[in-house]
Order: sequence, then structure tokens, then C-alpha cells
Amino acid sequence: MTIEIGVVMGSTSDWPTMKLACDLLAEYGIAYEKKVVSAHRTPDLMFDYAKTARKRGLKVIIAGAGGAAHLPGMIAAQTTLPVIGVPIKSKALNGLDSLLSIVQMPGGVPVATVAIGEAGAKNAALLAAQILSITDETVAEKLARTRENMRLSVIESSDSLE
Amino acid sequence: MTIEIGVVMGSTSDWPTMKLACDLLAEYGIAYEKKVVSAHRTPDLMFDYAKTARKRGLKVIIAGAGGAAHLPGMIAAQTTLPVIGVPIKSKALNGLDSLLSIVQMPGGVPVATVAIGEAGAKNAALLAAQILSITDETVAEKLARTRENMRLSVIESSDSLE
Amino acid sequence: MTIEIGVVMGSTSDWPTMKLACDLLAEYGIAYEKKVVSAHRTPDLMFDYAKTARKRGLKVIIAGAGGAAHLPGMIAAQTTLPVIGVPIKSKALNGLDSLLSIVQMPGGVPVATVAIGEAGAKNAALLAAQILSITDETVAEKLARTRENMRLSVIESSDSLE
Amino acid sequence: MTIEIGVVMGSTSDWPTMKLACDLLAEYGIAYEKKVVSAHRTPDLMFDYAKTARKRGLKVIIAGAGGAAHLPGMIAAQTTLPVIGVPIKSKALNGLDSLLSIVQMPGGVPVATVAIGEAGAKNAALLAAQILSITDETVAEKLARTRENMRLSVIESSDSLE
Amino acid sequence: MTIEIGVVMGSTSDWPTMKLACDLLAEYGIAYEKKVVSAHRTPDLMFDYAKTARKRGLKVIIAGAGGAAHLPGMIAAQTTLPVIGVPIKSKALNGLDSLLSIVQMPGGVPVATVAIGEAGAKNAALLAAQILSITDETVAEKLARTRENMRLSVIESSDSLE
Amino acid sequence: MTIEIGVVMGSTSDWPTMKLACDLLAEYGIAYEKKVVSAHRTPDLMFDYAKTARKRGLKVIIAGAGGAAHLPGMIAAQTTLPVIGVPIKSKALNGLDSLLSIVQMPGGVPVATVAIGEAGAKNAALLAAQILSITDETVAEKLARTRENMRLSVIESSDSLE
Amino acid sequence: MTIEIGVVMGSTSDWPTMKLACDLLAEYGIAYEKKVVSAHRTPDLMFDYAKTARKRGLKVIIAGAGGAAHLPGMIAAQTTLPVIGVPIKSKALNGLDSLLSIVQMPGGVPVATVAIGEAGAKNAALLAAQILSITDETVAEKLARTRENMRLSVIESSDSLE
Amino acid sequence: MTIEIGVVMGSTSDWPTMKLACDLLAEYGIAYEKKVVSAHRTPDLMFDYAKTARKRGLKVIIAGAGGAAHLPGMIAAQTTLPVIGVPIKSKALNGLDSLLSIVQMPGGVPVATVAIGEAGAKNAALLAAQILSITDETVAEKLARTRENMRLSVIESSDSLE
Repeated sequence: MTIEIGVVMGSTSDWPTMKLACDLLAEYGIAYEKKVVSAHRTPDLMFDYAKTARKRGLKVIIAGAGGAAHLPGMIAAQTTLPVIGVPIKSKALNGLDSLLSIVQMPGGVPVATVAIGEAGAKNAALLAAQILSITDETVAEKLARTRENMRLSVIESSDSLE
Repeated sequence: MTIEIGVVMGSTSDWPTMKLACDLLAEYGIAYEKKVVSAHRTPDLMFDYAKTARKRGLKVIIAGAGGAAHLPGMIAAQTTLPVIGVPIKSKALNGLDSLLSIVQMPGGVPVATVAIGEAGAKNAALLAAQILSITDETVAEKLARTRENMRLSVIESSDSLE
Repeated sequence: MTIEIGVVMGSTSDWPTMKLACDLLAEYGIAYEKKVVSAHRTPDLMFDYAKTARKRGLKVIIAGAGGAAHLPGMIAAQTTLPVIGVPIKSKALNGLDSLLSIVQMPGGVPVATVAIGEAGAKNAALLAAQILSITDETVAEKLARTRENMRLSVIESSDSLE
Repeated sequence: MTIEIGVVMGSTSDWPTMKLACDLLAEYGIAYEKKVVSAHRTPDLMFDYAKTARKRGLKVIIAGAGGAAHLPGMIAAQTTLPVIGVPIKSKALNGLDSLLSIVQMPGGVPVATVAIGEAGAKNAALLAAQILSITDETVAEKLARTRENMRLSVIESSDSLE
Repeated sequence: MTIEIGVVMGSTSDWPTMKLACDLLAEYGIAYEKKVVSAHRTPDLMFDYAKTARKRGLKVIIAGAGGAAHLPGMIAAQTTLPVIGVPIKSKALNGLDSLLSIVQMPGGVPVATVAIGEAGAKNAALLAAQILSITDETVAEKLARTRENMRLSVIESSDSLE
Repeated sequence: MTIEIGVVMGSTSDWPTMKLACDLLAEYGIAYEKKVVSAHRTPDLMFDYAKTARKRGLKVIIAGAGGAAHLPGMIAAQTTLPVIGVPIKSKALNGLDSLLSIVQMPGGVPVATVAIGEAGAKNAALLAAQILSITDETVAEKLARTRENMRLSVIESSDSLE
Repeated sequence: MTIEIGVVMGSTSDWPTMKLACDLLAEYGIAYEKKVVSAHRTPDLMFDYAKTARKRGLKVIIAGAGGAAHLPGMIAAQTTLPVIGVPIKSKALNGLDSLLSIVQMPGGVPVATVAIGEAGAKNAALLAAQILSITDETVAEKLARTRENMRLSVIESSDSLE
Repeated sequence: MTIEIGVVMGSTSDWPTMKLACDLLAEYGIAYEKKVVSAHRTPDLMFDYAKTARKRGLKVIIAGAGGAAHLPGMIAAQTTLPVIGVPIKSKALNGLDSLLSIVQMPGGVPVATVAIGEAGAKNAALLAAQILSITDETVAEKLARTRENMRLSVIESSDSLE
């Protein structure tokens, strides 16, 4: 099975968050790879990763980083594949720095930014699936089913209040 | 030519910003439609728009909104197509409210958020093109050419300092 | 007894906060209903809820939500009943995102926003009671008594310092 | 015609904003009074105003203030009528200070807070009308008509893009 | 001994913070009184307190409050004695709301604002002592001694590193 | 006439703001001196100024500064006179940096902080007058008159609306 | 004369700010080069620039960038020369995004960050000079003279008030 | 061995953070001294420290402080040696106040600011080493080795995911 999604993160400390993205991709049966690739500590590796991504068959890259979070934007600078950025909750500023460092990209090089932290990681995987679903009917059906399940689970949960 | 991208905005006052997205799509020869669809003033229309988007052949929706910017997230709630949110610069808080209202989506319903204002609008179109480029070689080549032009223009501009 | 107040929240995780609103309504003998209604996971249900609210006899809707908190504003878009929004304290940004997403509504569709978190939930119920009190003398008297009790309790508490 | 709505503001410099609330009330044919009442410069007047509001027949008070915006909360402390707070855009902090000073009320004394600035002023009047509409069918119909007009005007505006 | 300093706070929950102010006043032998006086729950009491402060012999009022912290500013509106405001650390916004609500007073009615939380409470007492020291040599000498002790304690602490 | 108030500012660019403090002191007939004293450009002068302030007869120091606004706190570190800090509106961050740099003083060395910008400058002078009024009946009466004038002017202004 | 300082910026739009750094270096007679090098549009060029900096004889790199300002941090990732980051004032968020993107670097790769905008650009050049001054007596003397001139100019300016 | 780096901090409570800077300097074999020097509690000592720094042979000063963090900027005002500022995470505002107080220095007196908290402390030491490395080949080699180790450790850590 060809790997379609690359999941990268700046540090192993981002893994508990980014694992949620990987779990969801696995659940969807979407082949992915996961790596620690640091913008600041392995810049050349990061560039190699980004530059070869398209020809290696990747379709979407999910990149999580915190603080001065340069990984998503710098990967985006070296590929024209869609790059999804996950702002990791940071120690002092709770991810506001991560968010602004990822989302405020200059015209020309977009990063598809999702929410800070765990909701963002999960949504990054869903967004990747939504992108694949444009041409992949099976993924589109799975997404529809997830939505339906979410709907039902809200309705059930409503009865359980108190 | 089938319309592939839907560009919606909450108000005509968002048009000067969102026009940059439309201009770029036109430049790329990507067929798009543009509409004012307000989450708060035309909620039913918004839901119709979102619910029928996939079957009408749309592949990506770009939604711009400011302040309590609910349009991108509410469209995303009614389709599993990728939705790109553009935070419009707001009067009092300069778009920080728009950004947080768009990006901080709960797990389950992602919005691909880009930068506040004009850079974001332009990047929304580029991100849409990048998504199409996964399966459309022509768009991929155009994106590569844009990048190369950007590169050259930076190098030229460097010589013009002073 | 006709149900006068609808209390809705985006997720069961909002319940510990929103319970304070329900408790206060119960204390006042104001009939209410409570439901989990998610803007993003049950959008159609939300619209049905809002559209039918007035004819079902509801007088005020209290809506609690966190993060990109669209529930209060989207309910407000589908009813002309007063909607009170409670910004739930969020994980990363402590409810600042919730607050701005709820309060910064565009001209035309107001949401009556109260404080972030527990004080806000309690005050949402009091505000609903205050609205009812315009035409309901009994509620007006209860509110006056609550105020008097608060006053006495402050005075007592002052003596207990140290 | 009995005056139903009191519109107060901390300073004449708030008038260009608060005028939008008055204009809308006039348009709806809702009788209102307008006054400059400063929490800090006329505290006794403010308390008199708030304490006598209910017996003078007022049903809702709209209070606009900027900076350390104490007017809405202090009026709310002296009446159990619903008080709507409008955060005026301030010079240095663009109304973020006004917003937090108004919305972050402690449990026991709510202020129904609307958006910063002009949208907020207009919405304060609409919210007051929505409160009246609970028992006033005529106002309810006017609100429905306003919504319908807003809807139509969005649809028209959509065609005028470009 | 005439009471010179009034220490008031909006709630008993502010006491653990405000106690630091009282302890320091006690240490300096400055006579003070302490009370819970709530702007929102005991507004009339607050005004009585402020209006009679000067003739009762008070020289400085220290007022601590959190969230929409109106107590210091409203006391300042009813007396021309110097009022020192202590922003209490709030639950959701960590005291940023308290700080802005206290410090951003309009021209005409100042509040002498100190730091958020415990450092602020302690400094409020020191500031009160500094004000008294203008005409009270004994207090001036105590302040000089405190400074000298602080200096020595820093120098000692430096040797204890590691 | 002995100079009672020292007004210092970090730069001549602060003068348009700080002039409001001086004008008000002049209006009250309180003798003051004004100087540019920069924490960063004339640190020794600043320390001399602060250290000799009390023996030169000064009673209160008003210090205005912007950005990394160290002047008020560093003057406060070298005198036990009350120091009032005026946060000057800064270019990029509108005075939020100035405010936090001035108000967040550590326990032991207070700065009496007022609002950002012109309201703050005016209030710094009034606060200084309030401090003097503890022992100076004439100033106390002037302050009472100012308050009364403010009250009357609000009432008049109210009639001029529209 | 060997070029000692490299001044780079992400875009020609940063030049009006970064010119202040160049002017000061010129004034000090420190040889520098200036280039537009964009992290996102010329990533390979940026890496080449950074990787070869030390062997080309550069001693300090000054990098200015705005928004998601990745240039200083990414240059720092490819050299162990000191890198000084200048946060350019951005359109929507006034440089707060630039500042956090530059300063919040992870452990291992520092960026010496200075103030937002023009003061920062000027200070970047001074900081570079200060670094050179450790081993260059001439520069040290120039710095001392600049400080003395600043001191004198403050003193003169003080007399010109009013 | 001559002491090359001075590490100062405003309080012993900063030591757990600043220790990381000292540990790294020790690891690099760079001679340093460490002291508690408080801007507000030992201002004269601070000035003596800064004024004599260059002639005592220091090459770089690292200064950590929190809240209204004046230490780095005031040391920088009394020396032309490079001063590195470490914003300590503060209680209420998580170091945002410390960061702004340190980084927003006026033109003329730079402080090389690093990240809030522990990452910043470590990076302050690395930045000092980078400054020394301009003329010290041994330090330059150590820095290169640290970078290489970081690179290898990222690559290893990548394999350990899950």
C-alpha cells in the first residue's frame, strides 16, 4: 500500500498530541508514515523530506510543532503538496505562539492550520482524509459515516445529562 | 468547464480581500464560483450551499469571514469537502477574533485556516490549487512555476535594495 | 408547566459548567429543558431547535460552547428570541477564543454574552430570569430576594475575615 | 407612549456609537430615553437612574462605556432589569479593555454583553427588541421582517460582486 | 490609634491575597481596617464607605477585586482620597481582565494600580506607607529600613545559589 | 514655592502626553518641575534624581515611559517616595508593553500605575493632588470642586445629545 | 575590507525598517552586505547563505522578518554564528506574531531577538557592534561615544520642553 | 581562567531556570560567575556590576528576570557589552510581561532576548557561546558538535516513536 500521508513533528514531546492524528489515519485505513523531523535541529533532513515528498507519492503532509513553530511553514516552502500545520500547546504561552507562527504565512506559501493541541491533531488527519475524499469514494463514505456517528453520539449523550 | 472551487464570504465588505483569492484562481484557470453567503443572515442558504457542494461537483470551498466568523466552520459542519477559512481583518480586534473563531474548531470538523487578511485570501486559493494538484498534473506544474517565479523575483528584488 | 428556557450546550464536557445555570433555574422554579446540541456535529438538529423554539413556547435560549464557539450565534441566526451565550473555558486559550467567538457577532444578530465559565453559566440563568421578570412579578420578587441575600451574605462574610 | 428602553452612555464621545442603538429603536417604534450617565463622574445619578428604572417602567437598559467600563455592571448592580452592555472601542486597546470590564461580571450580577463598537450598539437595540418580543407580537413581527430583509439583501449583494 | 488605611475587597475569596497587604500594614504599625465590600453585591455600602472615608479619617484606601473589577474605580468615584487598586488573579484570564478593569480609568478619576496578585497586594500596602511617609518621618524610616533589608537579603541570597 | 511634584519622562516624544499632567498641576497651583530623564540613556542621572528627590523636598514623582518602560520602576527602586507611572502608548503594541513593564513590579517596590496615554497622564496629576490632599485642605477642596464640575458637565452634556 | 555583518530580510517591504540597521553599521564603519533572502520563497538560497556564512568571514547575521517570521530561526538552524532577529511590524497583528515567531525558539538554536520595528532594527546593528566590540577596541570606543552622545542629547532635550 | 560570562538574575526564585544556562556554560568549559542582582532591590549593586563588567574582563552578560523585568535592560544601559535577556515565566501572565519588558527596548540600548523560561535560559548560554565562537575556534567546534549531536538525537528519537 502506497504511503499517502506524511506525519512529521518537531520533537518526540509532540508525539502524545500527534499520535491522535496517526490513530485516526489508521482507523481510516489510510497509509501514513510518521517521523520526528526538526526544522531547527535537522534542517537538511527537513528539506530533503519536503522536496522528495511528491515524487515519493505522498499526497498530504501533516506537521506538528510548538513555540516558534517553523516546521509546517518550512516544509510548505519546499513542496507544493498541501501541508497541514498542527500548533502544539506550548509551555509558557499555551500554543498562541505556535498558532501565530504557523498560520500567519506570507502570500505565496500557505499552511492549512488547525486548532491548537489534540483537537487540532485529530482534525489534521480528518482534513487529510477530506482532501483524499475528493477523488477517493471510499474515504468519502467513511467520512460520511464518521459524521453520522458523531451526530448519533451527540443525541445519545444529550439523554445522559445528569 | 466544471466549477471546482466555491468561494463564499459573509459580506460584500469581505470582497476586497476575497477578490485576491478569485484573481489567483482565474490566473490558474481553475473554474470557481463566488457568492455572498452569510452564516447569520442567510443560514439556510449556507446549509443548502454546503450540503449540495459535493454533488454539484465542488472539490474545495474557500470561506472568508470576520469577527465572530462562523461561516467556515458551519459550512464545514455540512460537508466533508475540505473547507479553507480566511480570517478577515476586523475593525476592533484586527482579525484576532476572526482567526480564533475559525481555527479553534472542535475535534471532528476541521477548517483549514490561513493567515488573516490579504495574504490569507491569496494563500487560500493557492492551497486549493495545491489540493487539486494531487491529481492534476497541470496545476502541479503551474504551482511549480509560481514558486520558481517567486524565487526569481526575490533574487531580483535583492539587487534593487536602495 | 410550560418550558420557558432552553439550555443547550455543544458537548457533555460543558455540562459541569452549564449545570450551574440549570440549578439556578430550578431554584427559581423556572421550567427549562436541557440538551446537548452541537453546531458542528448536529447542525440540522440545532437549526430545528432554534427555528421551532418560539412556537414551542420558549422565551429565552441559553447556549454554552467553547473554542470556536458557534452554537450561540448560529442559534441566534435562526430565532428572534433572546439568546444568551456562555463562553466555556477552553483547554489552550482559557476561554478567550470562546468569548470572542460568541460576543463579536455582526450587526443584525445579537448574542447576549456573559462571563467565561462558571460565573457566566450562573449569570446566564439570572439574566434569563431578569428577562422573564419584566412581565413576571414573582420572578422579579425572587430576584430582589436573591440580591438582598447576596448583600447580607457579603456583610456577614466581612466579619469572618481572619 | 411609555418609555421602555433606557440608553445610557459614559460620555458624549460614546454617542456616535450609541446613536446606532437609538436609531434602530426609533425605527422599531420602541420608546426610549437617552442620557449621559457616568459611573465615575456622576455615580449618584447613575445609582438613582438604575434604582428607579423598574418603577419608572423601563424594561431594558442599554449601557455603553469604554476603557475601565464600569457603567453597565454598576447599573446592573442596582436593578434586576436586564442590562445590555456595549463595549466602546477605546483609544489604546481598541475595546479589549472595555469588553473584559463589561463581560467578566461575577456570579450574581449579569450584564448581557454585545460586540465591541458599532455592531454592538446596533445589536444592543435588537437584543432589547428581542426581549420585548417575548410578549409583544408586533415587535416579534418586525424582527422577523428585519431578518427577512437581511436575507434578501445578502442575496442581492451576492449578485453585485465585482 | 486612628485608622489610616481602609483595606476592602470584593469577596472573601480575595482574602488570601489581600491578607498580604494587611500583614505588611500590621508590621509597619499602621492602623487599618479590613472589610468585604462588593461593588456588585453591596453597591450602597460601597458608596457609603467611600463617601465617608475622608471624614472618618482614612488617608488611603486599598481595594482588591478580580474579573470585571469595578470596586477600586467605583470607590475612587466617591472619594478624592488616593485609592490603590489590586488586580486579583482571576480564574479564566489570570488577572488580565482584573488589571485592565482597574487601570484603564477615564481622565478625572484615577486608581493607583499595582501588580496582579500577591506581589500587588504587598506593594499596595507599601505604596500606602510611602504616601504616609511624605509627612510621617517614622514611616519613612521604616521604609528605608525595609529597603536596606531587602538589599541585604538579596546579597545573602546570592551566595546561597546552588 | 517649594517644588512638590517631579514630572519625568523617558523622551521628548512623551511630552505631548505628559504635558497634560503638567497642565493639570499648573491649574491646581501645585509647584512641579519637569525633566527628560531616560532610564536607558541617562541611567546615572536617573538614579541621582531619584535618590535626592526626598531631600530636595519632592513629595511625589510622576514618571512616563513607553515600550520596555523601565523609568517608573527604576526611580521607585531609588526612593521611597510614591512614584506614579504613566504608560505611554507605544508604536507597535499600543502601550500594552508599557503598561505591563510598569505595573508588574515585584513585591517590595511599588509603582502606582495609571491608564495608558492621555487619560493616564491627566490622572497621574490628579492622583498626585489626591496624595497631597491628605494633609493639604486647599488641594482637597480643589479636588472636590473638580469632581463637582465634572458632574455638572456630564449632566449638561447629556442634554446636548443629538 | 572584509564583510563582517550580513543583513538579510524576507522581503523588500522590510527594507524601510532594515535600512536603519544598515545606516547605523555604515555610520560605525562596519562592513556589511544586505540581501533579500526569503525563508519561504528562496529556502535553498537561505540555507546556502547561512551554511557558508562563517567561512565567508561573517561574524554576525541580522535577519528581519514579519508575520510567521521564520527567517531568523531558520538561518540560526544552519549556522553557529550569532543571529539577531528583528520582528517587522505586521499588518494585522502589529508585529506580535513576528515577535513570537522569532523569539520563542526551542532549546538548542537561539535567536537574539530585539524590539518590534524601527527601534529593533537600529538596536540589531548596535548589538552586532557590541558583539564585535568584545575584541575590537575601536568599535568599543565608538559605542562609548554613542552612549555619551545619547546622554548629552537627553539632557539638552530636557531643557527644550515646552 | 578568566571569567568571560556573567550570569545574573533578579531573585533566587529565578535560579531553577537560570541554572540551565550555567550548566551549559560549565559543559562548554566557559568560565562564568553567577549572582543574584536585583534591579529593584539592589539597584546600585546592579549599576556597579554593569559598569565594571567590561574592565573586569566579562565578554557577555546573561540576565534573567520576570514580571516587570528591568534587570537586562538596566544592565544594558550601563555597559556596551552584549547583554542577553531571559524572560522568566511569571505567575499571572506566564512570562508575556517578562518578555515585553525585556525585548521592547528603545533605540540605542539593545537587549538580545531569548525565549521565555527554560528553553530561553539554555539558549542564552548557547548564544553567549556563539558570540565567543567568533574568535574562539574551540568554542566554534564545540557548537558544531552540539548541533551534530542534536541532529543525531532527533534521527534516533524518530525511530523510537511508539
